[in-house]
Amino acid sequence: MTRVALALLSLAATTALPGFAFAQRTAPPVPAPVDPKVAALRDAALTDTLAYDIVEGLTTEVGQRLAATDAEARARTWAVAKLKSLGFKNVHIEEYQMPVWLRGVETAEVLAPFPQQLKLVALGNSGATPASGLTAPLVVFKSYGDLANAAPDSVRGKIVYVGNAMDPTQDGSSYGAYGPARFVGPALAAKMGAAAIVIKSIGTDPHRNPHTGGTNFPTGTAPIPAAALSVSDGDQIERIAARGKPITLKLTLTPRFAGTGTSGNVIAEVPGSDPKAGVVLVGGHLDSWDLGTGAIDDASGVAITTAAAKRLLDGPRPRRTIRVVWFGAEEPGGYGGKDYARVHGQERHAIASESDFGADRVWRFEVNLPDTAKPVADRLQSALAPLGIARGAGVGGDGTDVGPTLALGVAAVDLNQDGTRYFDTHHTPDDTLERIDPVQLRQNVAAWTTMLGVVANAPEEIGSVTPRR
Amino acid sequence: MTRVALALLSLAATTALPGFAFAQRTAPPVPAPVDPKVAALRDAALTDTLAYDIVEGLTTEVGQRLAATDAEARARTWAVAKLKSLGFKNVHIEEYQMPVWLRGVETAEVLAPFPQQLKLVALGNSGATPASGLTAPLVVFKSYGDLANAAPDSVRGKIVYVGNAMDPTQDGSSYGAYGPARFVGPALAAKMGAAAIVIKSIGTDPHRNPHTGGTNFPTGTAPIPAAALSVSDGDQIERIAARGKPITLKLTLTPRFAGTGTSGNVIAEVPGSDPKAGVVLVGGHLDSWDLGTGAIDDASGVAITTAAAKRLLDGPRPRRTIRVVWFGAEEPGGYGGKDYARVHGQERHAIASESDFGADRVWRFEVNLPDTAKPVADRLQSALAPLGIARGAGVGGDGTDVGPTLALGVAAVDLNQDGTRYFDTHHTPDDTLERIDPVQLRQNVAAWTTMLGVVANAPEEIGSVTPRR
Repeated sequence: MTRVALALLSLAATTALPGFAFAQRTAPPVPAPVDPKVAALRDAALTDTLAYDIVEGLTTEVGQRLAATDAEARARTWAVAKLKSLGFKNVHIEEYQMPVWLRGVETAEVLAPFPQQLKLVALGNSGATPASGLTAPLVVFKSYGDLANAAPDSVRGKIVYVGNAMDPTQDGSSYGAYGPARFVGPALAAKMGAAAIVIKSIGTDPHRNPHTGGTNFPTGTAPIPAAALSVSDGDQIERIAARGKPITLKLTLTPRFAGTGTSGNVIAEVPGSDPKAGVVLVGGHLDSWDLGTGAIDDASGVAITTAAAKRLLDGPRPRRTIRVVWFGAEEPGGYGGKDYARVHGQERHAIASESDFGADRVWRFEVNLPDTAKPVADRLQSALAPLGIARGAGVGGDGTDVGPTLALGVAAVDLNQDGTRYFDTHHTPDDTLERIDPVQLRQNVAAWTTMLGVVANAPEEIGSVTPRR
Repeated sequence: MTRVALALLSLAATTALPGFAFAQRTAPPVPAPVDPKVAALRDAALTDTLAYDIVEGLTTEVGQRLAATDAEARARTWAVAKLKSLGFKNVHIEEYQMPVWLRGVETAEVLAPFPQQLKLVALGNSGATPASGLTAPLVVFKSYGDLANAAPDSVRGKIVYVGNAMDPTQDGSSYGAYGPARFVGPALAAKMGAAAIVIKSIGTDPHRNPHTGGTNFPTGTAPIPAAALSVSDGDQIERIAARGKPITLKLTLTPRFAGTGTSGNVIAEVPGSDPKAGVVLVGGHLDSWDLGTGAIDDASGVAITTAAAKRLLDGPRPRRTIRVVWFGAEEPGGYGGKDYARVHGQERHAIASESDFGADRVWRFEVNLPDTAKPVADRLQSALAPLGIARGAGVGGDGTDVGPTLALGVAAVDLNQDGTRYFDTHHTPDDTLERIDPVQLRQNVAAWTTMLGVVANAPEEIGSVTPRR
């Protein structure tokens, strides 16, 4: 019995003491032993420099990588060269076609009661105003719920403002709580007859960096101009509205759809020794929004997963093939993830897992594994614990890129990053290299290396599961 | 003897103990007694709400206030209404004429080796590129010193980049150390034959909010296009340059001089009982740069000094008249301060003092007082100490707006704010209400109220001094 296990049993023996505030009724399970080879891989990864090198290179030498543009194509070329130089096998691009959306002019001006310029950016898939702008009364709603409860007559022909009260959360749950203002607010405003919509950014910073992001107009609903004010400018609108005088806004947004373009996934492999054991699919997305250089979203995701896979590539051949995918076109609608599932969905996968929540430390992991593979999760728990990573009680299986593959019944391991800072700069011009904390980035590489070391070599069969939802 | 003085004497008595690490050779001076009326004014000011109300109102209802524009004129109208509503006397505007400089288009794009857009803003007084832009090789200098040491042939016809390594300092001294890249770098580059100059912002943040600010081209030197990249974009240029490949930049800047316009100072008074005792001149500047809403630069300065003066206005008539000036057109060249000295320089002033370094806590005061008024400084020291404000060893007399008046030999009291955060957002779009910490703002009001309570009622004569420089 290990010393750790003895200590845990000793702690458990004290739980009968009355008034012991953190008493437990049952002894905690004995941790699964950690394979010394996995521990060695993990600890060596804490000195990783490759992930930072990739983030630095991609953000410096390519910069922004908007889906289906020349910039994203240059990023694929960069990725192939980098992955080949690192010695990965079967490095190639898989292309697909998709609609292209391009940003245009974007300005906003309060004409009354207090003339002033505002800072805003168009949302992905936004419609356009006339080139000369659109001037209309502004109707202010403090939340998406207030808009949903409003009478259509109150917004018809007007510009709608929707606020939010998003606060940071470690697990990112406030994005789900407040995101609908962006995800579906524009479509709702369009259906209600609004001329345009401006939302307060779905972000947690008090700065003047507006957060873009995709919105969606369902078939049959003509897109209206839709933009996000910076959080600071949203607060300004709410202060102006509190004065009680009618607000007139002039809005100029000239984004456009530019037909069909080419995007693609970049694929690289660490070949495994047992083709029947299933592929371990990991990755992040190569595209970014066009405002920043996409450091936390998501150069860090491709960098972390690639740096971890490289550590397996440099050691003994793993049982399972590790496939690293730098997905294309995640931001405008997950095109890369859908294409991957279309092309590879019938191959046997052991698990699928993506990194797309920045580069701050992994604090939790969650799995969706078949009963035959439960011991894999126990070993992950023991091996990840020294990195400060706890096992969560939920069912794993998250992410836009691996989602279509997971939906086919592939097992999942999620490594959850701390999202407290993430929505300060998510989708803003400020998503640049400076946002990366090299120490936390290395912890991510260690977590992913550990996960790959455990899962790729697991002797258990990892068959299909019921998807999380 | 007060309890404080007894405690200090008791401490001094222990200094002979060997090994007493903070021993002092001489007993500290006995603090001057604090007038209970001054202490009461000071302590009441710690609950002030007026200063925040002014900052909130000016930044919300006017927004940016670029010198000699309609926005600055609206700000004067706002100021007069506010000062009259507060009960100040002799509220009026003193207008003057000045050149008008207006921002235009401002974009920058790396064409080679790694195509990407950059974030930048024109510097005040910048020249313009052709409307279609200017494309030229970029020559990278890490510092102003490197540019100054370069051969003119190395920059002729090219675009010059000048970096800096500015770190935050409490006293703002790093602005002086690195500011020359902005203050005189463009003129130097122009004399060397450069086609244009882009500097890394004179700022201490790692974000993508470029810092504007004035530059100056002396007579005989034709202005060249001059802009500041965000600190993040400056770092990006330096990373690209480190790859060793030639950089080509396309720069489009279309600012213009728009003839002569009207600016003005807004003046308000708390009448004193002794016209011969000299005016106590305090204030900040009403104009701002055009990017943010000028909260820390300098709505907070006019707010702090006005809120403090209002506390004297609401009490017994002070000995000296307190004159609050909301100076116009400080940013493009201190026009308001010069006009004030032109109009009022021959009036007797007791002291002149301005608040123009944000709204973080006052940590130090320094004076330039005639020998006859030395006890005033001692009383300031005692009265300000409970606010955590120490007496500095330097000679006071700082500020663009009161500078021309001080230069005539007027005495000075400086209340120095903590500048550690100041250059994170100074002259950026991010200079907005969110930057104001209400608790620190109230400490400022308490410091200024204390200063006015001591100085405006000082029985000593406060005559002229030798200016600091």
